[in-house]
Amino acid sequence: MKKYLLPILFACSLPVVAVAQQQDSVVLRHLADEVLTHSTAYENLRTLTKTIGGRLAGSPQMPKAEQWGVKALKAAGADTVYLQECMVPHWVRGAKEEARIISKRRDFVPPLNILALGNSVGSGPAGITAPVLEVASFDDLEAKKDQVKGKIVFYNYHFNPTYVKTFHSYRDAVMYRGRGASRAAKYGAVAVIVRSMSHGANNLPHTGAMAYDSAYPKIPAVAIGLEDADRLSQRIKDDESAKVFLRTNCVMLKDTIGHNVIGELRGSKYPDQYITVGGHLDSWDVAEGAHDDGAGCVQSIEVLRAFKGAGIRPQHTLRVVLFANEENGTRGGTKYAAVAKARNEKHILALESDGGGFTPRGFSSTMDAGKKAKMMSWRPLFEPYGIYDFEDEGGGTDVGQLNAALGTPMAELSPDSQRYFDIHHAANDVFEAVNKRELELGAFGMAGFLYLVDLNF
Amino acid sequence: MKKYLLPILFACSLPVVAVAQQQDSVVLRHLADEVLTHSTAYENLRTLTKTIGGRLAGSPQMPKAEQWGVKALKAAGADTVYLQECMVPHWVRGAKEEARIISKRRDFVPPLNILALGNSVGSGPAGITAPVLEVASFDDLEAKKDQVKGKIVFYNYHFNPTYVKTFHSYRDAVMYRGRGASRAAKYGAVAVIVRSMSHGANNLPHTGAMAYDSAYPKIPAVAIGLEDADRLSQRIKDDESAKVFLRTNCVMLKDTIGHNVIGELRGSKYPDQYITVGGHLDSWDVAEGAHDDGAGCVQSIEVLRAFKGAGIRPQHTLRVVLFANEENGTRGGTKYAAVAKARNEKHILALESDGGGFTPRGFSSTMDAGKKAKMMSWRPLFEPYGIYDFEDEGGGTDVGQLNAALGTPMAELSPDSQRYFDIHHAANDVFEAVNKRELELGAFGMAGFLYLVDLNF
Repeated sequence: MKKYLLPILFACSLPVVAVAQQQDSVVLRHLADEVLTHSTAYENLRTLTKTIGGRLAGSPQMPKAEQWGVKALKAAGADTVYLQECMVPHWVRGAKEEARIISKRRDFVPPLNILALGNSVGSGPAGITAPVLEVASFDDLEAKKDQVKGKIVFYNYHFNPTYVKTFHSYRDAVMYRGRGASRAAKYGAVAVIVRSMSHGANNLPHTGAMAYDSAYPKIPAVAIGLEDADRLSQRIKDDESAKVFLRTNCVMLKDTIGHNVIGELRGSKYPDQYITVGGHLDSWDVAEGAHDDGAGCVQSIEVLRAFKGAGIRPQHTLRVVLFANEENGTRGGTKYAAVAKARNEKHILALESDGGGFTPRGFSSTMDAGKKAKMMSWRPLFEPYGIYDFEDEGGGTDVGQLNAALGTPMAELSPDSQRYFDIHHAANDVFEAVNKRELELGAFGMAGFLYLVDLNF
Repeated sequence: MKKYLLPILFACSLPVVAVAQQQDSVVLRHLADEVLTHSTAYENLRTLTKTIGGRLAGSPQMPKAEQWGVKALKAAGADTVYLQECMVPHWVRGAKEEARIISKRRDFVPPLNILALGNSVGSGPAGITAPVLEVASFDDLEAKKDQVKGKIVFYNYHFNPTYVKTFHSYRDAVMYRGRGASRAAKYGAVAVIVRSMSHGANNLPHTGAMAYDSAYPKIPAVAIGLEDADRLSQRIKDDESAKVFLRTNCVMLKDTIGHNVIGELRGSKYPDQYITVGGHLDSWDVAEGAHDDGAGCVQSIEVLRAFKGAGIRPQHTLRVVLFANEENGTRGGTKYAAVAKARNEKHILALESDGGGFTPRGFSSTMDAGKKAKMMSWRPLFEPYGIYDFEDEGGGTDVGQLNAALGTPMAELSPDSQRYFDIHHAANDVFEAVNKRELELGAFGMAGFLYLVDLNF
């Protein structure tokens, strides 16, 4: 760890803004060198994913992940590390799910590879066998509502390939996962199958949270991969008598205790004012949660380590938060915001990384016009690092709670999104899918961004 | 394939440039939709890599690859497809190479995983056994020149992690691969081992072209992976009597016949003026050459297909060229330029894709200031597609020959470079390492760029 004072640049013939940007550019280069040469983010991620693995809220892995977080934050040089208790949902997948097409046609029909959606009820031990009604959309469901009763509704809505930012395709499609079960149960469906939200070139099913509307019966909801979705669609066209059998074993238990893991680097000038940076520690149970959101956790820890390693002490207290529960409840972010509000804390900005550990492209944000203009002026400083996209409105799910509670300005790292929905909530979200340099460049981007926030907001 | 006339936009209150950009923006969106929805690039790449595989110039795979190219260009809708003969080097790796450390220490020393560098001589059947002299650089070699005689010189120069664009790290390090053998042979070395040019997180050796200086004896040259390089470095520190045995079986045969594969889409207004777009069909023998440069080939073919699919006929003739030999000779580009010169052809611009099938970031280019300014004005049109970086001087190795011969303006797609040197010239440059959407976005970027070149250059 090298610590030295940064050279102060004198360039009296330049206007003040230019001089300031020149100094900032030296500090950013210094931070980038620190991260690209000494980062521990990749090895931290290896430990989290390979020794603990998937860590759904309430799972036995979660307290291990919390202890990992405490240790990693201490090793990064945090002044203070502590746990913040919060109640979290406790949904358990249970034994492996199974499904198959039952068709009178005698050719071999391989099983359907399914994953129960998070928060879904199970099918019961006998499973469910019913004919399948395919719908292309909610409009299509409404048009076919008289045919729904007693059927398994199959939402075969395709991920739109023409959006350049894949999160737009996700926003466009995710309602079928989130609300499809109750929309179908309203008309008497017995279960739903949802085509995965993915451009993926494989057959993996992608899970994710769903929620029930209490006005209708709770019916099981599962995801299938793209090849199986196409196969199912074809088979029920070819054989109108085809049925699907599915059995899921999931159950929602009562809420249990989880923790946000928090580490602080005390501010030199405004120790009682906070800049938050975080990702969520929980992940789905079916993979290692490497991109979603181990990456955001280790990048947030790296921001603190890089500040220390580069000899930069922020003016405001930097608070790294590993949120307890984003995937199926947002309880971590909600708790963090509630405590901040109750304590009347002053928060300067909150930054989240929850879009995967891919090459950084920019930051989305929600802040007033004056701050936005200030942030936009930093673009020339970041372009040498491939970070240029500061236009999008946004912010993260977890820090969004702080924004809602206190009006805190918020931002989220925007990584390159092309590969994200290949692995999102699926079994292939593993350490090997993360590139060391892409992860590190994201961490640098976050550190540089917060260095400028600390000086200018 | 949909064909329709693009809507003509009327916006009389806007200045002419703004109107033009608005129309261009509609065409670019139309091209993007065409590529992201109907591209055949990914499936073309699958066929090339999985049914033909590695295809070094002179290898039995090369004529198969040429036939694949002819077929793919015809399927894409080229008006004319033909082969352009050129002589190519014929270097053959021979049977698998082997190497190991011979150490008096009795602990197990696993074999070194080596690859002969392209164009290198072999060791002879008995192999070479000699002590190892590690050098950190050419300066270090000069300082130690009296110790070189009879030794294997080990260039352990590290890939610099602080360059953001990894091609800068490559340019910084590649001289040890390219010229290291003769530099060491000058002082009596019997072979050289080169640390691979990679940030990679595995132990794969990365091959690549080397050349001999005819003033000195030709000695064998091999690459080793990063873990083996660290291990070898440590072992020769721990055991000064350690030697390395290596055996390579490569041989340079006499030049043989290869072909550039060319497909044309005839220009509507200037059929005798050409816009070239291409990648190189040859690859190293040790992998499938998926990113390097199968990606550039299928993207170039996709440019033609997308023009046809989108109903756009260029004013100038679009010429797709799959160059015969880039890796160890640049004979394909050289031949293409020589023929263009001999025929006194008029070339508007030549575009290359040879940086991998990763998400596009921009274009490097070499052209006069007027054209450069015109090109820079397109940036707002490309930013919605994540393409923003038009600053770099450059151009590709193959189209560089045309630039040198005729002064033709040239450009090269700049993909995100973070993962490139993980797979470059190594066994893991396979189809599975290419993401469909990243590949397609690059192809769209090239098509959009050439659409604007065709209208404005």
